[in-house]
Amino acid sequence: MTPLLDRVKIPADLWNLSVAQLRELADELRAETIDVVSQTGGHLGSSLAVVELTVALHALFRTPHDRLIWDVGHQTYPHKILTGRRDRMTTIRQDGGLAGFTTRAESEYDPFGAGHSSTSISAGLGMAVARDIKAREGVGHERAVVCVIGDGAMSAGMAYEAINNAGALKARMIVILNDNEMSIAPPTGAMSGYLSRLISSRKYLGLRELGLKLATHLPSKIERGARRVEAVARKAMMGTTLFDDLGFYYVGPIDGHDLEQLVPVLRNLRDAEIDKPILLHIVTQKGKGFAPAEANPEKLHAVARFDVATGEQEKAAPAPPKFQDVVSKTLISLAEQNSRIVAITAAMSSGTGLDKFAARFPDRFFDVGIAEQHAVTFSAGLAAEGMVPFCAIYSTFLQRAYDQIVHDVAIQSLPVRFAIDRAGPVGADGATHAGSFDLVYLGCLPGMVLMAPADEAELAHMVRTAALIDDRPSAFRYPRGSGTGVPIPENPLELEIGRGRVLKEGADVAILSLGARLKDALAAADELQQRGISVTVADARFAKPLDECLIRQLACHHRVLVTVEEGAAGGFGAAVMQFLTWTGLMDRGLVFRAMTLPDRFIEHATQSAQIAVAGLTTQDITSTVCACLQEQGEPSRSKSRAAPLRPG
Amino acid sequence: MTPLLDRVKIPADLWNLSVAQLRELADELRAETIDVVSQTGGHLGSSLAVVELTVALHALFRTPHDRLIWDVGHQTYPHKILTGRRDRMTTIRQDGGLAGFTTRAESEYDPFGAGHSSTSISAGLGMAVARDIKAREGVGHERAVVCVIGDGAMSAGMAYEAINNAGALKARMIVILNDNEMSIAPPTGAMSGYLSRLISSRKYLGLRELGLKLATHLPSKIERGARRVEAVARKAMMGTTLFDDLGFYYVGPIDGHDLEQLVPVLRNLRDAEIDKPILLHIVTQKGKGFAPAEANPEKLHAVARFDVATGEQEKAAPAPPKFQDVVSKTLISLAEQNSRIVAITAAMSSGTGLDKFAARFPDRFFDVGIAEQHAVTFSAGLAAEGMVPFCAIYSTFLQRAYDQIVHDVAIQSLPVRFAIDRAGPVGADGATHAGSFDLVYLGCLPGMVLMAPADEAELAHMVRTAALIDDRPSAFRYPRGSGTGVPIPENPLELEIGRGRVLKEGADVAILSLGARLKDALAAADELQQRGISVTVADARFAKPLDECLIRQLACHHRVLVTVEEGAAGGFGAAVMQFLTWTGLMDRGLVFRAMTLPDRFIEHATQSAQIAVAGLTTQDITSTVCACLQEQGEPSRSKSRAAPLRPG
Repeated sequence: MTPLLDRVKIPADLWNLSVAQLRELADELRAETIDVVSQTGGHLGSSLAVVELTVALHALFRTPHDRLIWDVGHQTYPHKILTGRRDRMTTIRQDGGLAGFTTRAESEYDPFGAGHSSTSISAGLGMAVARDIKAREGVGHERAVVCVIGDGAMSAGMAYEAINNAGALKARMIVILNDNEMSIAPPTGAMSGYLSRLISSRKYLGLRELGLKLATHLPSKIERGARRVEAVARKAMMGTTLFDDLGFYYVGPIDGHDLEQLVPVLRNLRDAEIDKPILLHIVTQKGKGFAPAEANPEKLHAVARFDVATGEQEKAAPAPPKFQDVVSKTLISLAEQNSRIVAITAAMSSGTGLDKFAARFPDRFFDVGIAEQHAVTFSAGLAAEGMVPFCAIYSTFLQRAYDQIVHDVAIQSLPVRFAIDRAGPVGADGATHAGSFDLVYLGCLPGMVLMAPADEAELAHMVRTAALIDDRPSAFRYPRGSGTGVPIPENPLELEIGRGRVLKEGADVAILSLGARLKDALAAADELQQRGISVTVADARFAKPLDECLIRQLACHHRVLVTVEEGAAGGFGAAVMQFLTWTGLMDRGLVFRAMTLPDRFIEHATQSAQIAVAGLTTQDITSTVCACLQEQGEPSRSKSRAAPLRPG
Repeated sequence: MTPLLDRVKIPADLWNLSVAQLRELADELRAETIDVVSQTGGHLGSSLAVVELTVALHALFRTPHDRLIWDVGHQTYPHKILTGRRDRMTTIRQDGGLAGFTTRAESEYDPFGAGHSSTSISAGLGMAVARDIKAREGVGHERAVVCVIGDGAMSAGMAYEAINNAGALKARMIVILNDNEMSIAPPTGAMSGYLSRLISSRKYLGLRELGLKLATHLPSKIERGARRVEAVARKAMMGTTLFDDLGFYYVGPIDGHDLEQLVPVLRNLRDAEIDKPILLHIVTQKGKGFAPAEANPEKLHAVARFDVATGEQEKAAPAPPKFQDVVSKTLISLAEQNSRIVAITAAMSSGTGLDKFAARFPDRFFDVGIAEQHAVTFSAGLAAEGMVPFCAIYSTFLQRAYDQIVHDVAIQSLPVRFAIDRAGPVGADGATHAGSFDLVYLGCLPGMVLMAPADEAELAHMVRTAALIDDRPSAFRYPRGSGTGVPIPENPLELEIGRGRVLKEGADVAILSLGARLKDALAAADELQQRGISVTVADARFAKPLDECLIRQLACHHRVLVTVEEGAAGGFGAAVMQFLTWTGLMDRGLVFRAMTLPDRFIEHATQSAQIAVAGLTTQDITSTVCACLQEQGEPSRSKSRAAPLRPG
C-alpha cells in the first residue's frame, strides 16, 4: 500500500508536501525499494540509506533544472522511483531494462552518469563553473548543483583533487557527504577515522545552532574587522574542520534519516548566500529500515533476489568455484610457503576473494580503500624491497592506475603481480564496469607479462607462475563468475613464459584462443569437424610475450588463422598480426581474423548475452572460420569487397 | 674552488662534518649545481631550493641503506653530485648520459625512480611496510624511509591517497613537504592556500619548541588519561593541522635553507620514537642563491644553457612556431568568436602554451594543478552543460586520467576535446615522459575521434575541427617542439571527420602516415622514386575513425602498404590491419607493415636520436618498403622465415 507514492509521477509532485507527508512518503519509498530489489536483486543497502535524503532533495530542489549528481550511482533506486522510472524498476540491470547506475541516456534527472566512485564533485564543479560563466554573459540560468558522495568514495584521490579545486575556485555548490562509516567493505584510511572522530566529537546539529551558524556567516562585502569577528565566532562555536581548511563551508553532522532535521537544514543551505562550496555532513545507516540489511550491511550491499520477510537471498544454482576464489585459494597456499607474498586491494577485498587471504594473513594484506593509484605504486614500493606483491584490482578500476603501472611499475621493471578480476564482459553492471581494455592498455607496455586463463585450473597455474616472475611485472586477467568446473590442481604448475599449448591438431584452420573463450573455440572445432573441416585449436595462455614459435607453426601449416579474445581490438590479436606481418608470414595468402569485442560499449545484460552481442560465441567462431575458408577459396580480389565488415 | 666537495666521494663522507662544514659544503654544492646546469641546461630552480636539504639528509641518514625518495626527481642534481655521479653531471639528459630524474638503474642511491610527481609517499609507504613485515620475521634491517615532496605535488590525488593510507597504517616514515609555494607554475588549489596560511600563522619552529613538542609526545603505552593530557598540551602549543587530522605527526614550518635549524630538527625526528608517520614542513625558495632564478622562478625552472653571470639563457636557433603555440593561438582565435570555449590544464599552463589563453580569457581558463583525473571529469561536467572544453594535457600525464576518459567522457559520449601535447618521443626527459601510448589507449575507446597533425597547419585545422565536434569526445595529439615551418592558416578548415588526404600518387607502394612523420614518408617516396619505385603517400589525419575508403583504395591499387606512426604498436596501424583483415583486403597477397615505436622504453636523447632508435626515419621507411617489395616478389613461403623480425 503506497498511497502517497502512487501520486508522485515526477519530483515536482513533492514540492508542496509537508514534512509529515514526506516522512510517510519516505516509508512507502523504502518499502517499494525493498520490494523491487527483492524481485530483481541489485544494490540494496546503500539505496536504503538515502531514502530520506532522496525525498528531501527532490522536495527542496528543482530537478532536473537543479543538478543532482549521485556519486557511484548504485544508491539511486529511490531516486529512480521518484523520477518517472517506477514502472520499469523491475527491469533494472537486465537486458534492455533500466541501468543499475545513473545514466544520462536514461533520464534528464540523471545529469551525470556514474558507476565508478568519486567522480561527482569534479563533474558538479564543472557544472557550477559552466553556470557561472554563462551568468557573466547574462545568458544562463541560476541553478543549484548538489553532489552526494559517500565516505568510502572520499578515500579516492580524485575526490580530493576536486575538493582542492572547488575550494580554490569558491564555487557555489553543495556537497553532501553521506557518511555511513562504510563503503562496500569496512572503512579504511585516515580520512575515515577523521570523520568518525568528527561525528563523535560533536552533537548533532540542531536547528538553532544551524541558524546561529548561518547568521554569523555575514555577506562578503563587509569590512575586514567584522569578518575577523565572524571567523572567531564561527571557530569558537563550531571549531574548524579539514574541509574548512580546504575552502569549504562545513555543516554537520546531522542525522540523515531525520526529515525534521534534514529538510530545514537543506532549505537553509539552498537559500543561504555563502560564497564558497558547502559540505553538509550527514550520517546514515546502510540498509536502514530493513533489519537483515542493518544486521549485515556488507552481505546485503549487493544482493540476489531475496525473501522480504527474512532477507534470505535466493541461492545460486550449484556452480563451479568462482575465478576470484581460485585466485584467493591458490595465493593463500603459495603464501604459506613464501612469507614474502603480500596482497593489496583497493576496497574490493570481498569482491576479489582476498578477504580469505586477509583472514589468514592479516599482516600481509592491505586494503588501501578506493585508491587504485596508490595501490599500484604502494605495490611497486613493496616490490622494490623484495616482497612479492599481488595487486588485485578489477580490470575496469585498474584504468584508474594506468600511469602508475606505466611509470612506477613497467618502466622500472618491478615485479608487481596484477590479479585482474572481472576482465571481459561483466553482466548486470554494464558498460561502466566492463573489463574491455586491459589487454590493449597493458599489452602495449614493454616488458609486461600478460596472461589469461582458459579455465580455473589454468588460473591456478598462472597465479603460481606470477609468483615466480621476479624480474618484471606480470598480470593475469580472468572473468567474473564461475569457472568451467575442471579440477583445480593441488600443486599448480610453473608455466613457461610465453608458451601456449595445442589442444587439438588439425590441418585446415587454426583457432588461437586467449582466455575463457577456449571452450567455444573447441566447440566450434567440433562443429567444423562435422562439416569436414580439420581444425587446430591452441590456447595462447600469454598475450605477452607471444608464443612466436606456436604462431609461426599455426601460420605455416594452416590456410586460415583466427584469434579469439574477450577484449577490445588492439590487444592480443593485434599483437599476433604485428608479428605475422613483420615476419612475412602474412604475405603469402594466409587468411587471418582477430575476433575481439566490437567497437562499441555493451549495455547491461547477462554475461552470456553480452558475449553474444560481442560476437564471440561458438557460432560466431564457426561462421567466421567458414567465411574465411570461402574467402580463401575465392581467387578474385574484387570479391573481398563483399565480405561483411566487422567494426573494430 | 670546491675544496670540501672535492673530498666527498660518497654520502658517508658527510657523516662526520660539523654544521659549519655542511654550510660550506652547501655553498660549494650550489655553485657546482649552477655551473653544471649552465653547461647542460635542465631543471635549475628546484635543485637550488633543496641544496641545504640534500646536504642535511645525506649527513644524517645512512643512504643507500636508509631509503631517500625524491618526488618528481628533477630536483636531484645536488643529490646526484653527492652520490658518486659528479663526474658525469655534464652528460645529464643527453644520449648515454645521466638521466634528468632519479633512476633505479643508475644508482643504488635512487631507490625509486620518478619523473611524474606525487608518487613518493606511496612508494615510501610500500618500503616502510616491507621493512616492518621483514622485522616481524626477524630477518630485516631497521632503516629509515624519507620522502621529499613539493607543495605542487600535493595537489595530486595520489599523494592524498598515500597520506590517507599511511596515516591509517601508522607507518614509521618521514615525509618532508618542501614548500616553495610554487611547483612549476604559480600554486593552485585550496591545499596551497592552506599551506600558506599555515606558514604565515606560525613562527618558524625553534629548537626549544621542537624539543618541547617531542617531549610531549609520550610513548604509546601510557594510560589513557596521560595521553589525553598530551593531546591537549600539544594542541595548545601547536594547534592541530590537516595532516594531524589525517594521522600524521606534523612538525613545522622550518626554514629549509638554515642548516643550523635543519640538521638538529632532522636528527631529532630521525631518532624520535613516534609511532606514526611524520610530516616535516620546510620552506624553501625556488632558485635560491642564484639571483636571476630567484627573480624569475618560473622562467628558470627548466633552462637552456645559460651565462652564470647574468642568467641569460642560450637562445635557440630561429625555428618555426612550436606546436603548443599553434594550439594556443588557434584556440584564442576561436574563443574570440565562441564564448563557450574554455581551456583546462593540469599544472602545465606554460608548457601547453595556454598561459596566453589564460591572459586573454582569465575567466575561461582553469589550471587545476597536478590533478589530471579531476581535470578530465571537470571538463566532462563543463561539456555536459554545453560548454566547449579543451583539456590540454601531455600524452604521458593523460595516462593519469585514463579511467576518467573511459568512464566519464567516452561512455557518456561527452564532447571533451583533448589537446594531447608531447605525443611521441620527447627528447631529454626520456622514457618517463614519452608520449608513446595514447594512440593505443585512446584508439580502443568506442566513439573517440582521434587526430594527429602532420604539421602545424594541419594542427590548426584540427583545433578548429575539434571545436566543432559536439556529439562525442575528440583528441588531437601533436609532438613536442617546433613545427615544420609551413604557413599557419588564418582561417583553419573544418576537416571532414575520418577523411585522410593523398599527397602523392604512385602505383607500386602506398605509405599511409599518421602525424608528424609525414615528411619522412615523403622523403622516402622521393628516394624510392629515384630507384624506380612508384609511391603513393597519404596522410591519414585520423587514427579514428579510419578513412576506410582511402585504405581500401590504397590496399586495392598497391602491392605494398606501410603505415607510419609515432606510437606503440596496437594503435593506428593495428586498427588499419584489423580493417584490412575483416574486409578481406589482406587475403590476396597484399604486403602490409605497421611501422610503430618498438616494444621497449627509449632512454633520454634528442628527439631525432630517439626517432632513429625507434626506426622511424626516412631511411627506415625506405628500407622497409624495399624489404616488402622483395618479400612480395619472392614466391616461396619458406623465404619468409628469413625476413628480419621487428619486435612489436
